[in-house]
Amino acid sequence: MYDVEKVRADFPILSRTVNGKPLVYLDNGASAQKPRAVIDAVTRAYAEEYANVHRGLHFLSNLATEKYEAVRPKLQAFLGAAHEDEIIFTTGSTQGLNLVSYGWAAPRMQAGDEIVLSVMEHHANIVPWHFLRERQGVVLKWVDIDADGGLDPQAVIDAIGPKTKLIALTHMSNVLGSVVDIKTVAAAARARGVAIAVDGSQAAVHMPVDVADLDVDFYAITGHKLYGPSASGALYVRRERYPEIRPFIGGGDMIRQVRKDGIDWNDPPHKFEAGTPGIVQMIGLGAALDYMTGLGMQNIAAHEADLRDYAMARFQGLNWLNLQGTRPDKGAIFSFTIEGAGHAHDISTVVDQRGIAVRAGQHCAEPLMEHLGVHATCRASFGLYNTRAEVDALVDALELCHELFS
Amino acid sequence: MYDVEKVRADFPILSRTVNGKPLVYLDNGASAQKPRAVIDAVTRAYAEEYANVHRGLHFLSNLATEKYEAVRPKLQAFLGAAHEDEIIFTTGSTQGLNLVSYGWAAPRMQAGDEIVLSVMEHHANIVPWHFLRERQGVVLKWVDIDADGGLDPQAVIDAIGPKTKLIALTHMSNVLGSVVDIKTVAAAARARGVAIAVDGSQAAVHMPVDVADLDVDFYAITGHKLYGPSASGALYVRRERYPEIRPFIGGGDMIRQVRKDGIDWNDPPHKFEAGTPGIVQMIGLGAALDYMTGLGMQNIAAHEADLRDYAMARFQGLNWLNLQGTRPDKGAIFSFTIEGAGHAHDISTVVDQRGIAVRAGQHCAEPLMEHLGVHATCRASFGLYNTRAEVDALVDALELCHELFS
Repeated sequence: MYDVEKVRADFPILSRTVNGKPLVYLDNGASAQKPRAVIDAVTRAYAEEYANVHRGLHFLSNLATEKYEAVRPKLQAFLGAAHEDEIIFTTGSTQGLNLVSYGWAAPRMQAGDEIVLSVMEHHANIVPWHFLRERQGVVLKWVDIDADGGLDPQAVIDAIGPKTKLIALTHMSNVLGSVVDIKTVAAAARARGVAIAVDGSQAAVHMPVDVADLDVDFYAITGHKLYGPSASGALYVRRERYPEIRPFIGGGDMIRQVRKDGIDWNDPPHKFEAGTPGIVQMIGLGAALDYMTGLGMQNIAAHEADLRDYAMARFQGLNWLNLQGTRPDKGAIFSFTIEGAGHAHDISTVVDQRGIAVRAGQHCAEPLMEHLGVHATCRASFGLYNTRAEVDALVDALELCHELFS
Repeated sequence: MYDVEKVRADFPILSRTVNGKPLVYLDNGASAQKPRAVIDAVTRAYAEEYANVHRGLHFLSNLATEKYEAVRPKLQAFLGAAHEDEIIFTTGSTQGLNLVSYGWAAPRMQAGDEIVLSVMEHHANIVPWHFLRERQGVVLKWVDIDADGGLDPQAVIDAIGPKTKLIALTHMSNVLGSVVDIKTVAAAARARGVAIAVDGSQAAVHMPVDVADLDVDFYAITGHKLYGPSASGALYVRRERYPEIRPFIGGGDMIRQVRKDGIDWNDPPHKFEAGTPGIVQMIGLGAALDYMTGLGMQNIAAHEADLRDYAMARFQGLNWLNLQGTRPDKGAIFSFTIEGAGHAHDISTVVDQRGIAVRAGQHCAEPLMEHLGVHATCRASFGLYNTRAEVDALVDALELCHELFS
């Protein structure tokens, strides 16, 4: 059985108070808290086992390299990649998606070529493609979502034209929680010779992911949302794509030989990992993955599905709450506004007084806000340590907001 | 007085043994160890004060943002920048120099335009310029060093031609320890309308740096060599250069508004800081800077100058040691080979048996190795916690190597 109280005890920060109240942390969509196992792994790496990696032959350097490289097969297993070398270490999804943009798309796309993306993408999966629009005339084709926040895979497939080179989609909306049927889109993309890049920043946190089963080309994840350190992450790249990718960041480690007049590149994935990497961050991410897989991704998903259903039921009793994204199979991410309450920021300020951390704003998803016709929303996003009691605390606080503002 | 034993007690890892011997860590050029103050700051950030920055309005988000942004004025003071907004947070010098290459140089340089650089640059200050050579026909002009490992500023100035747009120089060689007279080069560059980017990865660790006095355009530093966390760092950018720089990494936080058909950028420095940053790494870097400035950069430099002089005197007694870089004002970084010893790696393996960590190889500086006519060297690089006794231990171990291999 999933013992959420035992899980909570693993997270030091959850025992603190905020504004005199026990912390209720519902801002997991922005970043997740860290279990003791991660914090301890980071401390140990710095206090006992630290050196630069790949570069020395001395004991500590070998030890650090061993610990660091041991994270690659963990990420391979976590994402279901067929090969260990399909895992590129990054500082997060933003860097991963920029690598796809600069390394794969930029040298391959001409003016008029198209990228298909949905209106509910996070800016990390928008701005890198806007660069290509601005700099080389690539066309962005936006696919709308349905009224319930779902994305019809057929609508994405229908948007593929002869000039389409890439589909860039989130696997789970950071605002609505909607899960996208990547597998169906990827199959159609492959049949048409179109590549597909997936922003897995949210999905990989909340459900089992299998990139081989999804059959995608690129899949980006970010460690700080996965209960791991800030500035950690990974990009899955289908091995067949490697020859098509130009180096992105240049520096040490990604080269085999540097001469005055030329360079020979290292083999992938190192070809795409320049300079001293986030050694300790990646070791910490490894500990986070161990922690999650120790609980079991299916168990985490089941726990969060219970929270989602419970929250949904409670929210349905609040007829002044405008909830965005109502699909029953979504992740436990809830964006809403309150009728009469002027601004989402006011809501977050009031609930913060009760120790409840939610986010207010546009959630790095302005095209979605425009599509929804709202300026901003409040967002409560749940994680593996949240409880039904915290849903109740949120609902109580929202009721107070409703009283105050209406 | 500089009490090195007190300093050593601040670094947990220095009390460990390696191969049954007390650790003698002389691989600081690759990465430095971390004082307890840094490790504690990282632990506290994760265990008590963690949330994403710039994005929430709740208590923990505000707290984390405050701690994170407090590092910017620390970096400003550390580097002597005139304005706080001239500090861009990075993951290290590699990212900083790539930002200069992709953001400033790439959109401004045409085929035939030139970049002047020295043969003793680190790959981080070579590969980003090779990208421009390969992709857009930029010409790299290499300036040789003198026999003692020094770089004549006039030789750099003489290499400036009408097509020169940028000078890219290290402030201190990571192989030889040679300090470059950046100020003289920068003054000449400015007079000719040429920009100058400086790789301060080593210099900022070992001596006081004042970018305003140096009068440079870009100055990159890397946190993990500054006794701070891996994946932390900063790039100084002269404010006047900001309008010339195109965004590099795209994602959240670096935008003011994202629409389906366009983007408005955030103001610098945030315009160049995309996505969730290395929140905790930067907080840890702030603690490292506090630690260093608490000791005093002048005091650190004086301590290391003593180590340099002591080591130099001891090495001069070893007539079978080929030392590369012999300038008396250099940093305490020593690269050498041993006559008769086949390979630098063999030396490092032997000294490692005595618990002494040195690096063997090409030190991410292959053009320099070619210039020196060596395949690889062994490098002992000192830091603020090293002692004369450690110099003696190294010399003893090298004498053993000499016996074994000759």
